[in-house]
Amino acid sequence: MAIKIALLGLGTVGSGVLKIIKDNQKKIKQTSGEEIIIKKALVRNIEKHKNMADTVELTTDFTDILNDSEIKIVVELIGGLHPTKEYITEALKSGKNVVTANKDLMATYGSELISIAAKNKCDLMYDASVAGGIPILRTIRKSYAGDIISEIQGIINGTTNYILSQMGENGLSYDEALKKAQELGFAEADPTNDVTGKDAAYKIVILSKFAFGTKIGIDDFTIEGINNLQAFDIEQAKKMGYTIKLIGIAKNINDKLFVEVAPCLLPENSIMAHIKNEINALQIKSQSLGTAVFTGPGAGSSATASSVMSDVIAETNNYVKKTNGQPFSNFSRIMKLTSSEDVKYPYYLSFEAEETLLTLSKLLSDLEIPIKEIKRVDERTVVVTEEISRQQLQDLVIQDQNLRASYKIL
Amino acid sequence: MAIKIALLGLGTVGSGVLKIIKDNQKKIKQTSGEEIIIKKALVRNIEKHKNMADTVELTTDFTDILNDSEIKIVVELIGGLHPTKEYITEALKSGKNVVTANKDLMATYGSELISIAAKNKCDLMYDASVAGGIPILRTIRKSYAGDIISEIQGIINGTTNYILSQMGENGLSYDEALKKAQELGFAEADPTNDVTGKDAAYKIVILSKFAFGTKIGIDDFTIEGINNLQAFDIEQAKKMGYTIKLIGIAKNINDKLFVEVAPCLLPENSIMAHIKNEINALQIKSQSLGTAVFTGPGAGSSATASSVMSDVIAETNNYVKKTNGQPFSNFSRIMKLTSSEDVKYPYYLSFEAEETLLTLSKLLSDLEIPIKEIKRVDERTVVVTEEISRQQLQDLVIQDQNLRASYKIL
Repeated sequence: MAIKIALLGLGTVGSGVLKIIKDNQKKIKQTSGEEIIIKKALVRNIEKHKNMADTVELTTDFTDILNDSEIKIVVELIGGLHPTKEYITEALKSGKNVVTANKDLMATYGSELISIAAKNKCDLMYDASVAGGIPILRTIRKSYAGDIISEIQGIINGTTNYILSQMGENGLSYDEALKKAQELGFAEADPTNDVTGKDAAYKIVILSKFAFGTKIGIDDFTIEGINNLQAFDIEQAKKMGYTIKLIGIAKNINDKLFVEVAPCLLPENSIMAHIKNEINALQIKSQSLGTAVFTGPGAGSSATASSVMSDVIAETNNYVKKTNGQPFSNFSRIMKLTSSEDVKYPYYLSFEAEETLLTLSKLLSDLEIPIKEIKRVDERTVVVTEEISRQQLQDLVIQDQNLRASYKIL
Repeated sequence: MAIKIALLGLGTVGSGVLKIIKDNQKKIKQTSGEEIIIKKALVRNIEKHKNMADTVELTTDFTDILNDSEIKIVVELIGGLHPTKEYITEALKSGKNVVTANKDLMATYGSELISIAAKNKCDLMYDASVAGGIPILRTIRKSYAGDIISEIQGIINGTTNYILSQMGENGLSYDEALKKAQELGFAEADPTNDVTGKDAAYKIVILSKFAFGTKIGIDDFTIEGINNLQAFDIEQAKKMGYTIKLIGIAKNINDKLFVEVAPCLLPENSIMAHIKNEINALQIKSQSLGTAVFTGPGAGSSATASSVMSDVIAETNNYVKKTNGQPFSNFSRIMKLTSSEDVKYPYYLSFEAEETLLTLSKLLSDLEIPIKEIKRVDERTVVVTEEISRQQLQDLVIQDQNLRASYKIL
């Protein structure tokens, strides 16, 4: 008896899922334990998708899917918070397992949906919600099940990594790089969520839940994008042997959790510094395993579809074994967030050069910020510090109006 | 009711497993669904391990473990083919689940042991047998369950990667690099299995089973180590923008399987070329996901212990859900191996310069080997070819006694 599933949304990812199920039928039956058939698809406009009507039953009414008792798995590929939250809630309440690639939704309403899934003994999986081309959530759950993760650093937004690579390597301006990214399909027409770091922030919220067992919200930490990053600082960093990347970080600092999304300087000889253009990467440090780096395409509809399919297959396999209803991440731990005193990094600082080096040195000395390097470059002053606390940096921001940029050195 | 397990062997990996279970008890209970207790350990010499006697019951007699019905999981960490094969066979036949990190064993007797496990409805997992520090087998099984893998390239032997890095970057000779590796614990006193490529070959056999579903044996493909690699060729490759790495490759070429372990030239700007010293890496290309690279420590007792624990936790979880007995890899497909005609790569060739460039060019032309570059360097001749078949290379070997080395360019 084949497992019947429904797709909500039939855009590029949905079509990718259809294609994978059609092309890889034989393997999927082996790995999932059953044949998988897409029975229905929810679309806004049936006319637009009528070429699919032979393959899958099209409907514009979600209740057609909800009331179909044959459908065991609902795959949500619409995106956005509403009505996706309501659809998923109803599907779970009617005993259907759910797969979603929706990071905004899981970062915002994850806890609520997870508990509805548990109450109804259904699976709710969302591997594709973080870095579609890097199978990371399931890997953290399974392969780090006995290990203690101490830090995750991620290049988890393809758009910004593409822009930074083009600025750093080909000397493009921010606007030129963004335009090129849009032309190549690596950036959307409205790139706000990407360039402000919000997209990466959603992902680090979900990663934190898996890696540290800890629930955080998108308002619990600092998010800085690349939209204010200047070519000058990329160039200075390069001269000093660093590459600037937008990094989502989640780190255990003395049993408190530090989370941030911000541009950071990475040493040029690190693997992470070599992750270019639209590629994503995650570096995981853990007690036993050590340091591992996972890289792959940032998103792209076929990578996301592949990730969605790994969830569909896992849920089918659970259905065959009658073991649906375990949480996707079963690690849970309460951790406080770090305060500004707890977090210490060396920093790259960039000032408008309105004060003399002596005045600036004196101010830094007063704030007990140890200087590793200070130099005047064109109309600016660049400082590299030793490790300082977030608190010291905040004090500096208040006391020196000329500070234009401050980036952690990892 | 806690799950009780037994360790066969209490060396560095075994001690690592003990430590992880002790330190991470709380997380492990959440992720596995039960408390895990190490009840017994098989050792050769009880006296030597008596400091452990408080923690775990020591025995020198395997039947003590076999006849203990409380023990649900046996973790084999002895290594070698015998008596490990017999121990594992008996454990499975008496209904115990098994975890092993033994690549030699799984590459040699894997099929037999897997079928004994299936017959007895027991789990047999061996994630740590390939690249302990990269959680790869479970990732292939789960995350590529719906995707079709087309190629795996792996730097899967830390010893040889360390030696090659030291030769390439620090200009050490092979002997100096090997000595340094031995001093730092990255090479064993007898490094034969590593430097001849045999260790990497065992791993590629296991990887092929997971990635392509296809059983191959260690005698089914060419294995070339780094023990004949000369500093001259490393230097020439470098000058042309390449890094030489020992690569285990398994690739689908027109639905036939090509498998090989050999030194290869990688473009310097590839991520794989940046994997240095004892670090391992696996690059997986697949139809839907694209290209992903996974890197981590090659082995090391604590990374291996972490990988062993992910298996122990998975088997415990299965035990709790009463779902033991599914194969670790459930993808199976019969593929023919490629013939010499099927396999085509560009090659780096290095000749003793006893013939003139003209004579050599003529010979290559007669064999229809297109030349991209040919040059005399010191007492040698270096040739870079366009794509040629393995058959053409074999013909060249027969016709030109001066060919000293030939490496694929990836």
